[in-house]
Amino acid sequence: MRTITYGGAVSLDGFLAGPNAEIDWLHFSKDVQQVMSDYWKDVDTILMGRKTYDFAQSQSPSASRKSKERSAKSKPARRNPPAMRTYVFSRTLKSIDAPGTELVSSDAAAFVRRLKQQPGKEICLMGGGELAQTLFEADLIDRVGLNIHPILLGSGIPTFRDPGHRIKLTLTECRQLDGGCILAQYSVLHAK
Amino acid sequence: MRTITYGGAVSLDGFLAGPNAEIDWLHFSKDVQQVMSDYWKDVDTILMGRKTYDFAQSQSPSASRKSKERSAKSKPARRNPPAMRTYVFSRTLKSIDAPGTELVSSDAAAFVRRLKQQPGKEICLMGGGELAQTLFEADLIDRVGLNIHPILLGSGIPTFRDPGHRIKLTLTECRQLDGGCILAQYSVLHAK
Repeated sequence: MRTITYGGAVSLDGFLAGPNAEIDWLHFSKDVQQVMSDYWKDVDTILMGRKTYDFAQSQSPSASRKSKERSAKSKPARRNPPAMRTYVFSRTLKSIDAPGTELVSSDAAAFVRRLKQQPGKEICLMGGGELAQTLFEADLIDRVGLNIHPILLGSGIPTFRDPGHRIKLTLTECRQLDGGCILAQYSVLHAK
Repeated sequence: MRTITYGGAVSLDGFLAGPNAEIDWLHFSKDVQQVMSDYWKDVDTILMGRKTYDFAQSQSPSASRKSKERSAKSKPARRNPPAMRTYVFSRTLKSIDAPGTELVSSDAAAFVRRLKQQPGKEICLMGGGELAQTLFEADLIDRVGLNIHPILLGSGIPTFRDPGHRIKLTLTECRQLDGGCILAQYSVLHAK
């Protein structure tokens, strides 16, 4: 079965971004490039919630200053590699017109459970913690990978929200990255 | 000037204990014993808030089952090493009758600022994040030391509360401990 990895760059106090989605504190390095390059080789599918989709669009190099006024039907500037398939989970968006990107309005856990059983490479769960909360609740996430940055943001977008039960992990890798960051990779000990 | 260290064993999602103060998920090992033994050698003062003081009393081996009924004036079972001085910060407790333990009802930041300038060894800030929040806000904490456990608790007592501004850290040590735990030690980059 395909595995789902959740994670990203986080502050030591567990935020993916600041209260206004600030990511100016992120430290990029050759270490990070190598980790990400190795990771993406095994991935052919991205899952994200609507807020992460909006954020990804706003961060695109060709996103206009009027991105907030962009309708859901306009063509997003973000481009995935040709073989990459993206699923955006939203109950409010009407449609998404972007190559390789599909809107999922049905039950996220049921959809992802089916997706994991289909043939394919690994699945990356990207972005904010709301979709992760749903998928942790359904015990569908298999790996957690964090790049823990040496900063306390105080507030912001939390990496982990309460899925209603404890989740035990096994540490699979831990090493220091450039800039005082810590790469911490875990596999999830599934309840069943 | 004396330095203040804050930290402890935490879950990967940043809790010091579960929602009902559960710490059954803590993993003790020779690694942890060694880290703590090395740490305590340099410490002669402990700071804690009232909730942590109550918790420490309830965890004492000789704490009675009726510990919740214990009045503030009764003799706590917890014993510090002879040379260790403990300050409990509370605006509600009337008095504390325990050897080496002093109640501080005045402004915590002002008290701790003076304490740091007095002669002595290192200072350990223990327990829940409320006193830490106050002292982070006043930029009085110098080091952060975490033993990050491979578990997501979902909810509980947060390690870090919002001090109202970002706090930059420098990673001073990172290594794997027994049981898939990560020892992460930082020094605080003071604002001034």
